[in-house]
Amino acid sequence: MDIQSLVKELKTANDAKIVFYVADGLGGLPVEPGGPTELEAAKTPNLDALAKQGVLGLMDMIAPGITPGSGPGHLGLFGYDPVKHLIGRGALEATGVGFKLGRKDVAIRCNFCTLDPQGNIADRRAGRIPTDESAPLAIKLRQVKIPGVEIFVEPVREHRFCVVFRGEGLGGNVADTDPQKTGVPPLDPVPHDPESRRTAEIAKQFFTQALKILADQPKANGLTMRGFACAPHVPSYEEVYGLKPAAIAVYPMYKGLAQLVGMEIVGSPATLAEEIDVLEKAWNDYDFFFVHFKYTDSRGEDGNFPEKVKMVEQFDAQVPRIVKLGPKVLVVTGDHSTPARLKSHSWHPVPVLLSSDTCRPDGCQKFGEREALAGGLGHFPAVCLMPLAMAHAEKLEKFGA
Amino acid sequence: MDIQSLVKELKTANDAKIVFYVADGLGGLPVEPGGPTELEAAKTPNLDALAKQGVLGLMDMIAPGITPGSGPGHLGLFGYDPVKHLIGRGALEATGVGFKLGRKDVAIRCNFCTLDPQGNIADRRAGRIPTDESAPLAIKLRQVKIPGVEIFVEPVREHRFCVVFRGEGLGGNVADTDPQKTGVPPLDPVPHDPESRRTAEIAKQFFTQALKILADQPKANGLTMRGFACAPHVPSYEEVYGLKPAAIAVYPMYKGLAQLVGMEIVGSPATLAEEIDVLEKAWNDYDFFFVHFKYTDSRGEDGNFPEKVKMVEQFDAQVPRIVKLGPKVLVVTGDHSTPARLKSHSWHPVPVLLSSDTCRPDGCQKFGEREALAGGLGHFPAVCLMPLAMAHAEKLEKFGA
Repeated sequence: MDIQSLVKELKTANDAKIVFYVADGLGGLPVEPGGPTELEAAKTPNLDALAKQGVLGLMDMIAPGITPGSGPGHLGLFGYDPVKHLIGRGALEATGVGFKLGRKDVAIRCNFCTLDPQGNIADRRAGRIPTDESAPLAIKLRQVKIPGVEIFVEPVREHRFCVVFRGEGLGGNVADTDPQKTGVPPLDPVPHDPESRRTAEIAKQFFTQALKILADQPKANGLTMRGFACAPHVPSYEEVYGLKPAAIAVYPMYKGLAQLVGMEIVGSPATLAEEIDVLEKAWNDYDFFFVHFKYTDSRGEDGNFPEKVKMVEQFDAQVPRIVKLGPKVLVVTGDHSTPARLKSHSWHPVPVLLSSDTCRPDGCQKFGEREALAGGLGHFPAVCLMPLAMAHAEKLEKFGA
Repeated sequence: MDIQSLVKELKTANDAKIVFYVADGLGGLPVEPGGPTELEAAKTPNLDALAKQGVLGLMDMIAPGITPGSGPGHLGLFGYDPVKHLIGRGALEATGVGFKLGRKDVAIRCNFCTLDPQGNIADRRAGRIPTDESAPLAIKLRQVKIPGVEIFVEPVREHRFCVVFRGEGLGGNVADTDPQKTGVPPLDPVPHDPESRRTAEIAKQFFTQALKILADQPKANGLTMRGFACAPHVPSYEEVYGLKPAAIAVYPMYKGLAQLVGMEIVGSPATLAEEIDVLEKAWNDYDFFFVHFKYTDSRGEDGNFPEKVKMVEQFDAQVPRIVKLGPKVLVVTGDHSTPARLKSHSWHPVPVLLSSDTCRPDGCQKFGEREALAGGLGHFPAVCLMPLAMAHAEKLEKFGA
């Protein structure tokens, strides 16, 4: 039995509130040998105060050495085995534009392409058509009608858009139609299992109708389809933890990931301060809050160490407002590391701070990666974080007599 | 393959002796933020001397955040996966009164109740009948005879007693007969699988005969049956580790748990000093000793921090007598945490001290939770403790060539 199943069995309800305050890509690296990481370089008086009372640790999101994408990183953070519950490319793309994927949905990443008069691909990305030209075309494709299936088309960016088929018996195991070269026509959608035959048939009809709609376009007169995927079928936060969870985020991707595990998306904040406004207003209506801050990751991806440090400081500055609400358990962490030095997600373990009145003190004096090495939580897999939060919230019964 | 199976394969015999010196509920919490835990507050010169030579660590009995009952806590300590090998309620109750459960046994927790003239339950606990009245009644029920099955009836306390059926093909999956309300008769025992049909049939006959025996009782003229359970079928210490193990404990529950894994119960000590007397006398006859001290847990459950500290000091005082016997490996730990502040078992990891001449020193200077954070054993699952003890006792062969 995995730990999530155990937690599901042992969960018990009380009024205690849990907050996950998540700085995307929080973990970092020094720019110079022996120097501080972004988190260590930042002035974080509020997080340091929490670290003194609470308990620190380091978390592997998936396993040592494995760099998580945003999908697996968040699934791990939420307590779901990210290897068992894979989020397919199409599902992540749809989720990323804020589409609420349901259990009867198959999502597909699509590219506009340019077809020559023979129907062969002349440009696989339709000349990198700009978003303001491609978005109206994607919306035009909503005219496609296929009996027995509901179709959603969402613009993404440049040549990219996203299609969702909703209906009974639609498997997600269909081969890409992008031949990955020019001078040949798009491939037929080929089903890889019997459950996906109908999906492939619908995809073929979609393609045929779309070509008619796009026929007079100079650049985007064709399309390819990739990453067919159903939504991962995970039990909801309510089922597993008995929690009523709210997600507060600026970016659609994170709202989408939270919604996959049954969190309710609250408010439409545009800044971190507004996210905390939303948290304050929603405080009495939920018992779990996921608050997501994007810009630590963004500046890490940019390779901008000093700006990532500033983002950590902005993140720190809002901590007192959260503490004032009186959560029983406040967890501060990330969904993966994004060291500015690497300009990308990395496999380095993610620092965690857990603050609660039931913490056993560990002597840590501030929040940072080195300090967390001697933290009371030790070095642990991300799927154990929710069980720990549930325990400190006193929402878990004893196992066995 | 799990680690226990690996150990089973690699085990090898020698004369080295291993002692597990276990203070129940040893792990604790400070009463004031930043203060010492019970173990840290106690003066433990003998354990501190061991800590300097040995190696410390912290142990999750089941998984991070999961609070263990005494059954799972001890199974984990003994190296058995406590989630895989669940000890049912009835089996634990029988074990708790010192009954030696065998492989053909089904154990049942029973309550005396009061039935009205129509056979409906008037009082589910027979007016909380005192033990000195209920115990003779339980013993009287030993008159029940059912062909093909051996029956044991053991008094417990107040309205509670315990019944064990011993025979071939007795499953443990039978529904409780306690309707959880008054004004209705006890329920029939309903089997939940084909293997438990015979058990249910025997339970029904037991009920019928018992009613006749109890007919003239003013309070305890009926009974209900709950928590039907077979003993967990675990391989013995001898099979897994090749050890000849002795258990030394004051309380029946812990003798019972030790007996479930095939330990021999030695002596009938009433105090910790007497337990060590037993250890000294039995030294030449066994190669593994489990010595259990109860009162650290008791005072923790009472919420009495200073008294738990005193119990730790009493526990420490006997250490030199154990050391003098010259065990190759001495492990000092608990089966779970029982912080006085929480007045209950908790999920906090349990401090471990392993002393042996093959320890790699870790710089720890005394035995305590904070010190153990930097210990050489790290933070590890309880099922790894026996493999570590076996290794330091040089009782494990190399794996692979």
